[in-house]
Amino acid sequence: MIVTALTEMFGLKHPIVLAPMGGVSGGHLAAMVSNAGGLGLVGGGYGNAEWLRTELGRVTAETQRPWGVGLITWAIDPKVLDLALSYRPHAFLLSFGDPRPYAAKIKTAGCKLICQVQDVAQARIAREAGADLIVAEGAEAGGHGGSRATLPLVPAVVDAVDPLPVIASGGIADGRGLAAALALGAHGALIGTRFYATTEALGHESAKRRIVAARAEDTGRTSVFDIVRGYAWPDAIDGRAIRNRFCERWHGREGELTATLETERVAYQAAARDGDCDTAVVWAGEGVDLIHEVESAATLVARIAADAEALLKRSAARIVAT
Amino acid sequence: MIVTALTEMFGLKHPIVLAPMGGVSGGHLAAMVSNAGGLGLVGGGYGNAEWLRTELGRVTAETQRPWGVGLITWAIDPKVLDLALSYRPHAFLLSFGDPRPYAAKIKTAGCKLICQVQDVAQARIAREAGADLIVAEGAEAGGHGGSRATLPLVPAVVDAVDPLPVIASGGIADGRGLAAALALGAHGALIGTRFYATTEALGHESAKRRIVAARAEDTGRTSVFDIVRGYAWPDAIDGRAIRNRFCERWHGREGELTATLETERVAYQAAARDGDCDTAVVWAGEGVDLIHEVESAATLVARIAADAEALLKRSAARIVAT
Repeated sequence: MIVTALTEMFGLKHPIVLAPMGGVSGGHLAAMVSNAGGLGLVGGGYGNAEWLRTELGRVTAETQRPWGVGLITWAIDPKVLDLALSYRPHAFLLSFGDPRPYAAKIKTAGCKLICQVQDVAQARIAREAGADLIVAEGAEAGGHGGSRATLPLVPAVVDAVDPLPVIASGGIADGRGLAAALALGAHGALIGTRFYATTEALGHESAKRRIVAARAEDTGRTSVFDIVRGYAWPDAIDGRAIRNRFCERWHGREGELTATLETERVAYQAAARDGDCDTAVVWAGEGVDLIHEVESAATLVARIAADAEALLKRSAARIVAT
Repeated sequence: MIVTALTEMFGLKHPIVLAPMGGVSGGHLAAMVSNAGGLGLVGGGYGNAEWLRTELGRVTAETQRPWGVGLITWAIDPKVLDLALSYRPHAFLLSFGDPRPYAAKIKTAGCKLICQVQDVAQARIAREAGADLIVAEGAEAGGHGGSRATLPLVPAVVDAVDPLPVIASGGIADGRGLAAALALGAHGALIGTRFYATTEALGHESAKRRIVAARAEDTGRTSVFDIVRGYAWPDAIDGRAIRNRFCERWHGREGELTATLETERVAYQAAARDGDCDTAVVWAGEGVDLIHEVESAATLVARIAADAEALLKRSAARIVAT
């Protein structure tokens, strides 16, 4: 058991947080991560109320341990925020946008505020907003992200917000990544893509198989999946996905895609429903190199924690008196 | 003292390697790193014979400890390789290009072959070439690089070339970075930008001041400095530098720069000579956030090693029996 400010804040067994991957981190997966001793976060994404009712109902039914929920900050509808809070989550993660308008309501509800940031300036704003925890997310992460890499970003954020605890995110898929996160001064790791390839994750088996098969070089940053789905991300924020036929066809031709949206969207939606990953997006980070099979969340949490503990012990054992 | 395959290979006190930064890692800096217990590598860059004679003469005069030299593989002139080997380096680092044509000569000279790679496929080629050590370099590094981030790249390379020892590079500037490298399964860290900001580094004081002042967001990848200097990098490889007036003016207008090269090159060369960093390049990685002053190499090596040891001990102490 690794004890950090994160594990103490929520009474966790392991400093492992399930990334609230929109539409992938459902209530069942979040509950299984929490039951395994981590912190499961339901991926509320853009805030679909019906989806949230289903998945938050599920997480509250399936775990007695602390859990949480995440929303994309710029897309927040205050009514959806109220809906999510009505399920009494222990943690609320906000990412991409200014958390300050929502911080007071979340904290007043007795919920810990976790702010995910992509650079040092955002980390300072999150601290000002009253964040209880900061997630420093590197550009190697799956899904939307900034431009800074995890390894140098984490210590820079730690220094900027000290003594506020920081969690590392981006490219972490095994015990080595968790051990490195702790060595960098973080109090745990937020892990996405690796949990996508679990039996409990929502989403098609075909998407999970792509993640297992992909190399890091098969991933790339693009806006084409946001354009076709009609999500207007601010500040040119794009996301890391496994390149597929749709991406090869439209990346670099975003104007043309926008011009033929009517046709393309219908086809895209059908592909997403059917799990046709030649067209539908599979968000994934550079950690895919380290993912070799679809497993249960409980197996994964236990192994990542055990491997990190063994690695930290082994690294410390390399130190000899001079 | 941290004992790893790297320290055992060369009899080092610390698993810290000075990156062979072209024109910056001179013989004096390399010798001071080696004397402090790390491994100093002279930055031979494109292979200027006169510069190498001066700097290799200096390193052999100033240290009795193991040291090495690096060259850019695609630019190697066999006569320059022979020249460098005639100084009897203990280690030879090759980066950017196929090491296979040069590996036998280097190893026959009794010199350890270190291959720096930017992805997993290159790591396999380096192993095939007979590399004794592999440096996995993330895209957050200063100077030329690939597209993979350090944190997920290092364990992927470790898995691909096991049991060959791997050194981590890119974004490492303090003890936290070294501790993270070891946690990721590497046997040490190769550090560039942080050593640029030392009293012993070659290059202008103005460049060192820029590194101390810069934030990671001030760095970016570009080809404009290679174009103006006349270096034809293959495969669209560009490098990470601190953005300056020259970069703002020409990045994205590379065709126009090429068309006006005659005028621009004269002005650029004058700026480089005079240390005018509004025009001359200052290669620097995302680790600049962690660099706050110009220090001596010996101070730096000792502090990075001591901090890494303390961090690994502290991380291991977080583990409690369940």
